[in-house]
Amino acid sequence: MTQLSELLPAEHPLAGCDDLIDQLRECGRLFHSRGWSVGTSSNYSVVLGNDPVELIVTASGRDKGRLERNDFVHVGADGCAIEPDQPKSSAETMLHVVLAEQPGIGCILHTHSIWGTLLSDYFFEDGGIEFSGYEMLKGLEGIKTHESVHWIPIFENTQDILLLAEKVKACLSDIDQPLTHGFLIRKHGLYTWGRDVFAARRHIEIYEFLFECTARKMSLPEKISGQD
Amino acid sequence: MTQLSELLPAEHPLAGCDDLIDQLRECGRLFHSRGWSVGTSSNYSVVLGNDPVELIVTASGRDKGRLERNDFVHVGADGCAIEPDQPKSSAETMLHVVLAEQPGIGCILHTHSIWGTLLSDYFFEDGGIEFSGYEMLKGLEGIKTHESVHWIPIFENTQDILLLAEKVKACLSDIDQPLTHGFLIRKHGLYTWGRDVFAARRHIEIYEFLFECTARKMSLPEKISGQD
Amino acid sequence: MTQLSELLPAEHPLAGCDDLIDQLRECGRLFHSRGWSVGTSSNYSVVLGNDPVELIVTASGRDKGRLERNDFVHVGADGCAIEPDQPKSSAETMLHVVLAEQPGIGCILHTHSIWGTLLSDYFFEDGGIEFSGYEMLKGLEGIKTHESVHWIPIFENTQDILLLAEKVKACLSDIDQPLTHGFLIRKHGLYTWGRDVFAARRHIEIYEFLFECTARKMSLPEKISGQD
Amino acid sequence: MTQLSELLPAEHPLAGCDDLIDQLRECGRLFHSRGWSVGTSSNYSVVLGNDPVELIVTASGRDKGRLERNDFVHVGADGCAIEPDQPKSSAETMLHVVLAEQPGIGCILHTHSIWGTLLSDYFFEDGGIEFSGYEMLKGLEGIKTHESVHWIPIFENTQDILLLAEKVKACLSDIDQPLTHGFLIRKHGLYTWGRDVFAARRHIEIYEFLFECTARKMSLPEKISGQD
Repeated sequence: MTQLSELLPAEHPLAGCDDLIDQLRECGRLFHSRGWSVGTSSNYSVVLGNDPVELIVTASGRDKGRLERNDFVHVGADGCAIEPDQPKSSAETMLHVVLAEQPGIGCILHTHSIWGTLLSDYFFEDGGIEFSGYEMLKGLEGIKTHESVHWIPIFENTQDILLLAEKVKACLSDIDQPLTHGFLIRKHGLYTWGRDVFAARRHIEIYEFLFECTARKMSLPEKISGQD
Repeated sequence: MTQLSELLPAEHPLAGCDDLIDQLRECGRLFHSRGWSVGTSSNYSVVLGNDPVELIVTASGRDKGRLERNDFVHVGADGCAIEPDQPKSSAETMLHVVLAEQPGIGCILHTHSIWGTLLSDYFFEDGGIEFSGYEMLKGLEGIKTHESVHWIPIFENTQDILLLAEKVKACLSDIDQPLTHGFLIRKHGLYTWGRDVFAARRHIEIYEFLFECTARKMSLPEKISGQD
Repeated sequence: MTQLSELLPAEHPLAGCDDLIDQLRECGRLFHSRGWSVGTSSNYSVVLGNDPVELIVTASGRDKGRLERNDFVHVGADGCAIEPDQPKSSAETMLHVVLAEQPGIGCILHTHSIWGTLLSDYFFEDGGIEFSGYEMLKGLEGIKTHESVHWIPIFENTQDILLLAEKVKACLSDIDQPLTHGFLIRKHGLYTWGRDVFAARRHIEIYEFLFECTARKMSLPEKISGQD
Repeated sequence: MTQLSELLPAEHPLAGCDDLIDQLRECGRLFHSRGWSVGTSSNYSVVLGNDPVELIVTASGRDKGRLERNDFVHVGADGCAIEPDQPKSSAETMLHVVLAEQPGIGCILHTHSIWGTLLSDYFFEDGGIEFSGYEMLKGLEGIKTHESVHWIPIFENTQDILLLAEKVKACLSDIDQPLTHGFLIRKHGLYTWGRDVFAARRHIEIYEFLFECTARKMSLPEKISGQD
């Protein structure tokens, strides 16, 4: 499914990472076609190492439906490009960095869908959204039964990404309700992750499905027994 | 429309079944693009024999939008792989087995759509959904007129697939209201089947159409005569 | 955009009509991808002559998203295949025939969408649907301004296609409100036409747009002045 | 992603502009697939110069999902083709011309979506639509924070395009509330622009996202604290 272009040349900072990059490009094509990554919104990364953090992350302002191999940046723990003369990385790179510090996270994906935007506002005052009883929950890593209750927290949106990154970091180690699979940012969208691109992409599809179910369920009329 | 990959090699347990497998792969691409098989949900099978049952069924945990030829397993009447060292078959394989025991069933397809998920919950207490008057009903095998009343039962969801398979089996031979073309599992999705992949795929499209019609009809305002 | 397959062989009754057939196949791919021709519903024709009527029409029961060149039948004024040993033509062929008798009609297309199905039922008792004020109306042949009022009648569904064809024929020559661009069949779908495939396909897109607008408009809340 | 066809021959008035034209063709394919440019609606242009204005604009009545390289016209400040024997340009060409007169505008795009059509009517009496708090607003050139309030005005629809062009021109230099990124025409659709095709296309995606958010938000039930 990958649209081939030239392999990155040997002198490029990301030479040899073509396959990982192509997996992110394919995510971009899928998410853009779904309407979850339009208008150059969203950003995606793969983790090359977590001690210290090294990431490949989408450059800022690119059309996610037609990413080229050189639309990515190699960044370090400070969120800055490791090599000189690279494109600017996504403004939200530090969110990727704090997630990449966690063990077992190989890929971080952010989408910006209609339903994610609306529900993150609708449920903001509740602090998050609770999903329960859906078979689809089993697509989230480690969940074995539909008889599960899953909570996704919602953070207030801000342009101060360092501050938000700190809040996310604190939430990841929260004792009562640790952040496990993903979070929403108000009127902004979803962050989720996984051990590799396959798992993170599956989590995006699961959450976007649950968002759409939740929103569409609210538009159904109240059930009157025996109604058809 | 089939994206070609290498034919399965002669030593593969499914060597020679490439065409049947490609038909299921094409179902996967279509259903994933529709949003009916996202997040590695859904499973599909073709029946090689029914006495004893032999099936080709999707392996567990695969992305249905980009199935490869070796993402399938050859299973027997016990739902287990016939040959050693094969991938794990779908957790719901025994539902395919009890359906494959029926005469005239050549393909079984399961989708997991938004509307199937929502309606299977909305109408759960009614025991099923009744469709009538739709021309589209004629796409279900054997239905000759829109002036038909068609019932699709809804089963409670469970992780005990053997138990659910027994319930489905009993329902298939129910005298008052036999299970004819398909069933829903609550907050989970649709199972339907046909004499071949073409017929089963048509049934998926018919049911998903009827689900969407039913749900969207509920969101229309009450009709006041003369309104436009 | 046309997926090429072998040209029809010289001995085929439709040899030489490959280009017209490919235009209908492309309609099928588009309409199926939109969800307007799923489950083998819909049928399409091009008019080869109207005195006497000669048509190329889709064979019965084909998947409209992947029509092959030999999924079409050459029929005459009686709706029957002109040559022996041809596939059965669509059950609704006689609707195509009465339309093909009209001057200036080169192509007839029928779709079976969710909104067409729902609105044809919702407005059935009104006898049709009135559209006005939409710029999109200008896509209907001969309409020059959005300040137009366009009426599309709705017929009761029936399996007696000959009877329905008679009613359509009468309506085409109705003096008060002649049938101009298309009609709906209750809980069934849309028929429209044009001087060629391009025009008929445009009419399908226009009507389906107007149906969706009409239905979604009904789901918006009542406007309160100053509301945002 | 561009479907290649023959380069325009040397004697064609647009010879050498193939790349700009292909960028517009790709917009057409995308917007048609989204349902924003169906039924030959919409029109697109690139600006070759603004003193005097020179544009490449879509010819009238073309299917935007499959534009060919010769479906475009080279027009001047009067909106007329510069060379003889060219296809008729879009009826709305003069709207493109008044926009092309502005400094820094390299591309003008018009879409005709369901939500654009409905909201332009719903909010017509308010004079426009206000968007605030959405992260997606940052996709509009020059907007740096979600804490922005963005206003898109709505003009009454008319077939007198010269009159409408005058109104748009006046609005562009309005002191209190200048027209910055785009406008709606009632029951008709969206005009937006950018310094190049990339920027204008991004603006289309941003506005269409905001329209859909705004419309779908209205269909959610009123929030009751603690509700899930």
